[in-house]
Amino acid sequence: MTAPTHPKAPEAAPDTVTTGPIAGSRKVYAPVRGHADIRVPFREIVLSDPGEAPVRAYDPSGPYTEADTRIDLAAGLARVREGWIARRGFEAIAGRPVKPEDNGGVGAGRLVPPCPAERSLRAGKPGQLVTQLEFARAGLITEEMIYAAHRENLAREAALDGARERLGDGERFGAAIPEHVTPEFVRDEIARGRAILPANINHPELEPMLIGRNFLVKVNANIGNSAVTSGAAEEVEKMVWAIRWGADTVMDLSTGRNIHNIRSWILRNAPVPIGTVPIYQALEKVDGDPVKLDWEVFRDTLIEQAEQGVDYFTIHAGVRLAYVPLTANRVTGIVSRGGSIMARWCLAHHRESFLYEHFEDICDIARRYDVSFSLGDGLRPGSIADANDRAQFAERETLGELTKIAWDKGCQVMIEGPGHVPMHKIKENMEKQLSACGEAPFYTLGPLTTDIAPGYDHITSGIGAAMIGWYGTAMLCYVTPKEHLGLPNRDDVKTGVITYRIAAHAADLAKGHPAAKVRDDALSRARFDFRWEDQFNLSLDPDTARRFHDETLPKDAHKVAHFCSMCGPKFCSMKITQDLRKEAETLAGMDAKSQEFLEQGGRLYVPAAE
Amino acid sequence: MTAPTHPKAPEAAPDTVTTGPIAGSRKVYAPVRGHADIRVPFREIVLSDPGEAPVRAYDPSGPYTEADTRIDLAAGLARVREGWIARRGFEAIAGRPVKPEDNGGVGAGRLVPPCPAERSLRAGKPGQLVTQLEFARAGLITEEMIYAAHRENLAREAALDGARERLGDGERFGAAIPEHVTPEFVRDEIARGRAILPANINHPELEPMLIGRNFLVKVNANIGNSAVTSGAAEEVEKMVWAIRWGADTVMDLSTGRNIHNIRSWILRNAPVPIGTVPIYQALEKVDGDPVKLDWEVFRDTLIEQAEQGVDYFTIHAGVRLAYVPLTANRVTGIVSRGGSIMARWCLAHHRESFLYEHFEDICDIARRYDVSFSLGDGLRPGSIADANDRAQFAERETLGELTKIAWDKGCQVMIEGPGHVPMHKIKENMEKQLSACGEAPFYTLGPLTTDIAPGYDHITSGIGAAMIGWYGTAMLCYVTPKEHLGLPNRDDVKTGVITYRIAAHAADLAKGHPAAKVRDDALSRARFDFRWEDQFNLSLDPDTARRFHDETLPKDAHKVAHFCSMCGPKFCSMKITQDLRKEAETLAGMDAKSQEFLEQGGRLYVPAAE
Repeated sequence: MTAPTHPKAPEAAPDTVTTGPIAGSRKVYAPVRGHADIRVPFREIVLSDPGEAPVRAYDPSGPYTEADTRIDLAAGLARVREGWIARRGFEAIAGRPVKPEDNGGVGAGRLVPPCPAERSLRAGKPGQLVTQLEFARAGLITEEMIYAAHRENLAREAALDGARERLGDGERFGAAIPEHVTPEFVRDEIARGRAILPANINHPELEPMLIGRNFLVKVNANIGNSAVTSGAAEEVEKMVWAIRWGADTVMDLSTGRNIHNIRSWILRNAPVPIGTVPIYQALEKVDGDPVKLDWEVFRDTLIEQAEQGVDYFTIHAGVRLAYVPLTANRVTGIVSRGGSIMARWCLAHHRESFLYEHFEDICDIARRYDVSFSLGDGLRPGSIADANDRAQFAERETLGELTKIAWDKGCQVMIEGPGHVPMHKIKENMEKQLSACGEAPFYTLGPLTTDIAPGYDHITSGIGAAMIGWYGTAMLCYVTPKEHLGLPNRDDVKTGVITYRIAAHAADLAKGHPAAKVRDDALSRARFDFRWEDQFNLSLDPDTARRFHDETLPKDAHKVAHFCSMCGPKFCSMKITQDLRKEAETLAGMDAKSQEFLEQGGRLYVPAAE
Repeated sequence: MTAPTHPKAPEAAPDTVTTGPIAGSRKVYAPVRGHADIRVPFREIVLSDPGEAPVRAYDPSGPYTEADTRIDLAAGLARVREGWIARRGFEAIAGRPVKPEDNGGVGAGRLVPPCPAERSLRAGKPGQLVTQLEFARAGLITEEMIYAAHRENLAREAALDGARERLGDGERFGAAIPEHVTPEFVRDEIARGRAILPANINHPELEPMLIGRNFLVKVNANIGNSAVTSGAAEEVEKMVWAIRWGADTVMDLSTGRNIHNIRSWILRNAPVPIGTVPIYQALEKVDGDPVKLDWEVFRDTLIEQAEQGVDYFTIHAGVRLAYVPLTANRVTGIVSRGGSIMARWCLAHHRESFLYEHFEDICDIARRYDVSFSLGDGLRPGSIADANDRAQFAERETLGELTKIAWDKGCQVMIEGPGHVPMHKIKENMEKQLSACGEAPFYTLGPLTTDIAPGYDHITSGIGAAMIGWYGTAMLCYVTPKEHLGLPNRDDVKTGVITYRIAAHAADLAKGHPAAKVRDDALSRARFDFRWEDQFNLSLDPDTARRFHDETLPKDAHKVAHFCSMCGPKFCSMKITQDLRKEAETLAGMDAKSQEFLEQGGRLYVPAAE
């Protein structure tokens, strides 16, 4: 395993990324009966107790975490979907020629070479079924749906053998989580717009996954250079690093030079859906002046990115001219970059947003490649003071209107959400999203539940993320400790992803997701049995758990000790309880007595010995 | 400011602790009209914009954060309460002589000397008003109540001038938070048992504070050595360090040798209430064998600690013999140390708990010194699987019964709570506490919302803590990143405290606490105005916020730059919005148009220019 930290030469092609299994885990690929070309990836945590079954974990990390993986970034990943896509009869296209402005007009000496991996470029023809939504509506189940259905099930078959893991113990707020996810269920959820399967037909390397509130809650991590710092190798490794720790999708928010070519390296090596905000690159092409933006440059950028294989686009088409003044009295105005760019454009031209006016055209482009929409909340609140205000909810109504247009056009849609929201306003925000946007999946940034902790905004927002995930958000966009302060480094990205995996899992547990509790129970049993290695390996971050333990009790002998450093041997409650259990028969006899005692209203129990 | 990290000589008397103001803050003492001997401490964050009033923060850090403070640990802190207590006519007592076993029988060469600070020892006489509860019930307002009332108000007077900060925007779940906290309100809350003011009459150094759901949510931090590591200097500095970052009370959970003398250093230098779990020390006195415990050794330990000035005792008197078998089928049995000690004792002797049987005697001791109770949840769940089970709620009913006994005896009571609870069971847990225990303040550990993230349990529990704080918990016991793995170091303690301050503040915001939003709004305005220094200083942790910023943009010039490293100057949404605001008149005109547009159902707005 190599773990380069911040390679310093942005112009060099990336050649090393982090590989190898997560400590204590092994990659497994589950076959699917009747589908020789579908192998569903999982991570399996093997436990030291022979009485304990291995615990399966959902695994978005791709081939990078295989034991003996050979990664050749220049060749790109294996094309999991190639055969499936090839059979669908899409049009082979030459593709839009790369233009100098795609890479910010960078001089030859500073140009990052494009990823040389060769791929067939395709586009859907009019009238043809192209998007997963179109297939689903036609009653057809794609290979992607089968793959994603089995992926969602992870250990669910095993879980259903036990009594505890059945669906039921949870509060679902109207979600319709099934005991078992079938390909038919996936199809139906996509058909009614309640889930998306973001999968550009030009992204054959993708391992299909689902975003919808009746599936496991997902996590997105943002990567991207900026005008201040940048680097190609860094960006690819950031993606690999983010998915290693559990990011389900990655958004490339790069702005700066070499943006097109860096994206080619990311996409050819991405097993997860890649999202972008095309207006960022469009703005680069007009020298950073929002006023100079127009439909032509935006349209051209959409095609450029769609042909590269971007799986979802954030489009801020809900920032309408009339809504901009609603932000005038806010404490923090407009804090979405895309939103502020469009607001500036609208006001400067005194015109309705060209994204809004051309939304049907945008749909036509997205549909050709099955690029999903993430309808941006350009007017999301940037502070507690601005939460759930008129500007935000006005835009939300428009996003609902655009959702219906996109659906009519055959496009998959999710809706972006805030931002900064105090706890008591989170549920209202979720409910308005469900009603305004026809249950299209919600994809929220946090929300941050207070503004007063810059440096800890992964935590202020992790609180809100867990809650809104429980209430029904389908995907949580991570926040790192550097939010509001600077660019996240490698450690920050990991901290952000793990924090959001906690939030997503806490939400799955609270919704009573059938398989969620399996891992909690396995870890708790390991903890109670003093199986330290199992406890570490079942953790979301085995390396940190092990390191923290070893700081106080470094000796290997202590890893099997029946106590730990917190209390020492004399005070170990687990040890004392285990001693109690040795008196099992006594306990069994007493349980009946105890029951009797409780039924009698708790009068003092007179033990038999007296 | 000195910041010693882990002094290595446990036998040496501590002589340095961290002092000096938090960056950007100054300590202020507010006078109280008509009470020359009451000066209420606050922290004031001074902002760079002359149009911005300084922001007041509640400040539990004591004199350590004064600008030119001189701390003499051997002399102890100034005795804030000495005059008030002296006037109450308590009995002067000689005090129980220190016994060798109080310090674990440590040899002279390893004995930590006791803190030499001289104090008058006192005890309440029968029939006399001693506890804050007794004073309150008699309709009397103590100086402690006046002090704590003004402390709760912090900037509330100022806040009430503005329209936004009035009580109202929040969901309070039955809490009765007043717009303004008066001494009379404090008295009434204490009288009905809904709040406690933990303040041992032998702890004159204490700066009085309140724990109750109609006051600001408080945070406790645990310190303590253990059998594996220990150190006197370390423990005192840990207390100072924890309160510096916002711990409102500190529990000393020490278990090894020198426990009595180390505690004397902590108490004489503690401006916050100090809590203990007396059974830990009692167990030390019987060589660590729970079976050897008896009422005499426990009683003697209570008196020893009460005379030292401990402000609250955790007493696990709810672990009754009949409840122990209810834990037999749990995934993680009994995980409370005190609970497992008592369960072991009950089973070994086949007798009802001596804590339960002697609870009235315990009350008589606690009342003499006004030691508050924190009724321990010895059967709290140690895993998601065991949350809200029969064992826990059976014990809870008994805690409710004991609460009434303690109240009858004139003692102040709070109730400890879990532990590990998935999000959907937190509200039920809170509601059962309120009903079973007559609204006595709830004091919860977390709860952790998932078991799968050892190494990040400050976050898994911070989520639950924010929620249960919102639902009504009065004080949150922090959890550090080392929970379940090892002993927290200095950084872990800080991370734990800050995480819990976030949770407590998020809860205050969600409850609509009148003053809570002032700081959020001030920080958000600073953020929007690019007042970087103000943003750092308003943060819960200015040092970390500044350091994170400087990692990407270290130059001082960037601290006034109207952009930051995340987006760079071209993409700065705040910058763009500020540009928009320059078109203020346009916006004002458009606001009317926008209103019209919205009222007309959102038909396309045709700008005047066309």
